[in-house]
Amino acid sequence: MQAVILAAGKGTRMGLHRTGYPKGLLRVAGRELLLRHLILLSQAGVEEFVLVVNPENRKYFEEFLRAHPEFRVRMVENPHPERGNGYSLWCAREAVSGPFVLTMSDHLYEEDFVRKAVSGQGLIFDRRGLYVDHGEATRVKLREGRIAALGKGLTEYDGFDTGFFVLTPEIFAVAERLIGEKEEVSLSEIAAAARIPATELSGLFWTDIDTPEELRRAERLLIRASVKGAGDGFISRHLNRRLSTALSPYLCGRITPNQATILSFLLGILSAVLAFFNPLLGGILYQVHSVLDGVDGEIARATLSRTRFGGLLDSVLDRYVDFAFLSVLVLTLKPRGLMLALALLALLGTVMVSYVTERFKGAYARDAYRTFPVLHAFPGKRDERIFLVFLFCVLGYPEWLFPLLAVLTHGKVLFTLFVFYRGRKKLKAQG
Amino acid sequence: MQAVILAAGKGTRMGLHRTGYPKGLLRVAGRELLLRHLILLSQAGVEEFVLVVNPENRKYFEEFLRAHPEFRVRMVENPHPERGNGYSLWCAREAVSGPFVLTMSDHLYEEDFVRKAVSGQGLIFDRRGLYVDHGEATRVKLREGRIAALGKGLTEYDGFDTGFFVLTPEIFAVAERLIGEKEEVSLSEIAAAARIPATELSGLFWTDIDTPEELRRAERLLIRASVKGAGDGFISRHLNRRLSTALSPYLCGRITPNQATILSFLLGILSAVLAFFNPLLGGILYQVHSVLDGVDGEIARATLSRTRFGGLLDSVLDRYVDFAFLSVLVLTLKPRGLMLALALLALLGTVMVSYVTERFKGAYARDAYRTFPVLHAFPGKRDERIFLVFLFCVLGYPEWLFPLLAVLTHGKVLFTLFVFYRGRKKLKAQG
Repeated sequence: MQAVILAAGKGTRMGLHRTGYPKGLLRVAGRELLLRHLILLSQAGVEEFVLVVNPENRKYFEEFLRAHPEFRVRMVENPHPERGNGYSLWCAREAVSGPFVLTMSDHLYEEDFVRKAVSGQGLIFDRRGLYVDHGEATRVKLREGRIAALGKGLTEYDGFDTGFFVLTPEIFAVAERLIGEKEEVSLSEIAAAARIPATELSGLFWTDIDTPEELRRAERLLIRASVKGAGDGFISRHLNRRLSTALSPYLCGRITPNQATILSFLLGILSAVLAFFNPLLGGILYQVHSVLDGVDGEIARATLSRTRFGGLLDSVLDRYVDFAFLSVLVLTLKPRGLMLALALLALLGTVMVSYVTERFKGAYARDAYRTFPVLHAFPGKRDERIFLVFLFCVLGYPEWLFPLLAVLTHGKVLFTLFVFYRGRKKLKAQG
Repeated sequence: MQAVILAAGKGTRMGLHRTGYPKGLLRVAGRELLLRHLILLSQAGVEEFVLVVNPENRKYFEEFLRAHPEFRVRMVENPHPERGNGYSLWCAREAVSGPFVLTMSDHLYEEDFVRKAVSGQGLIFDRRGLYVDHGEATRVKLREGRIAALGKGLTEYDGFDTGFFVLTPEIFAVAERLIGEKEEVSLSEIAAAARIPATELSGLFWTDIDTPEELRRAERLLIRASVKGAGDGFISRHLNRRLSTALSPYLCGRITPNQATILSFLLGILSAVLAFFNPLLGGILYQVHSVLDGVDGEIARATLSRTRFGGLLDSVLDRYVDFAFLSVLVLTLKPRGLMLALALLALLGTVMVSYVTERFKGAYARDAYRTFPVLHAFPGKRDERIFLVFLFCVLGYPEWLFPLLAVLTHGKVLFTLFVFYRGRKKLKAQG
């Protein structure tokens, strides 16, 4: 499959037109917008790219592509960028040989959007437009599943134009006709004239970027979108993520996800050491660590640099931090008899909550929480446990944590096993 | 794909010919030989079976098939079983419409054999014959990759006839010619006359069963073959498996794998309770538990009743047993200060050794030990750890276990992470 990326715009509202520097090479979360397109579309199966540039920005793209020889990109020049992005599309006609993806270099999409959009047909439109300014966005009016009208001023409309199309070369005949008729031709006019079909894809993060403010806003939204599906607990959703997603945009491109993992780990160990001398301060730092623990994953997703090893390392180190903190409580509080037994159980349970879902993923090659959303119903995830530890340390009752965590964690393990047991036949039938 | 299973033999050497009861319905490891064929061939992609029976044994097969409506089996009668198994093959000609698997109801194959054999061509032959009596087995002589001669008396030969073929319907023309020429026709004669190709598949367990002694022997060998690839440690290979594989044949069909898992778990917990009063006896029982812990997997594989949930349950319960035993040592020996810290580390490490490889499997959807065989080089697997616990309890130095296990387990975790880290790029390239 091929993809055509339009990058002949002048970026006037960005203030870039004076230098000729293209919007598509602006960085969001440490990566050029164009590079995000190339990475995500490649992952979605696109093997060849056609990049439509203008005479002034061509040299910047040439330099960029020299630094990224891993992508097969053919550059096509639009000598008249002032004739509109419809004219840019028409310039790509000879480089395209079959069905193709069409998108804009100044748009930003989250991973899931691109993965799903490539299997759509015609214009991909968003009925809800969760992340876009409804006043600014291009509106779409449909008739019988096809485009009836496109434009910012439509009063009756069915959704918003995401700037992402899956087209066939027949579109070029329509483009050619319109270009013969008038000087400036927009993509919207061509899409409406061709009455291309439309495919809904709603609720995912995408945006176009016209102003510097939108660029910064996009960065924040991208980080927030990266949190979805991370399987967060209650404390994470309502507290930790609010703080970490506010911090992560400043760290993207400055530190790598693995560096964030190591820093968070060291902070966690430090909190345990501190707890040895002062449980109150240790507990506070432990909760700070819990907040920062989200940063590595957020950066990794937003900068498209997630690795399986990074995720594995993060999990293993989390187990050591939790163990270190609880061990310090055991060593300082010196529980005896039943209380010691409960402390040991709490130590085991802290690892087992994670063990049992990881073991599930190893056996069934699927995520336990996505397979059985009911698992969310039982509390005891890491963010919730750490918050309890923090709370009881601050309140001055750290010894209560032993029975509390012992019951909570092993209850969660039992509940999880029960859910797996109940669902095992359904899973077997699904293969 | 279709499969023809020849079951018209009289089982004379089994002593079955007096009753007409077929060899294919004898049970090995609690399952009929025929049922094993149906299960394994179905898993390998066979959708329809043709079963060639004789007038006497037909009723037994009819009864069996009524109890197993999940398989699509067409029965074909050979009215002249005395004319040989070549004649039985010929009887199936009208039920077969394309390439087909041909095998014998009185043969036994391990899972891997069937899975690989179905993608072979012609006769599947075994160059090494690890599990068969070289004097009794049918020998194969090849010329240019095709069968030149087949027979027990061959002095020059390239391997052994496994009784498993992947054929095309052209074979029936050759069968028809030979049947017209003589009264008794064997499959060997047809295969040799047709000069069918041959595919090597060596080193896996398969056998034919002619006598009651061979049936018992096959059961033992099947259990032993089931142990391969279980990722056993040193103690398991040289001690535990010798005992458990001797025991398992008696348990196949008597208890289910999950029952074996629960029994082994209860014994493990009992050993921990016992250790509270008497570390010596507790340690001995813990090692007995370690031996019995292999039985569930052996039964499950040998009886083809492995389930992913069963494996998951086994892993989780093992973690609880190990924790229980070490916790009891902590509660009775009452270590303080550094020794308590080491005891806690040993508790964590005991879980983490398993956690880190399970987490790998969850992330990469592949087995850590098979991906990186070098992981076997570092000791510290469960069988080895339990043996150390047993040894130190018997010798009377249980407190030495805390530093020993702390260093051993976390050393293994670190080593494992290092191996993953070193191999991460190669794995990424492989996808």
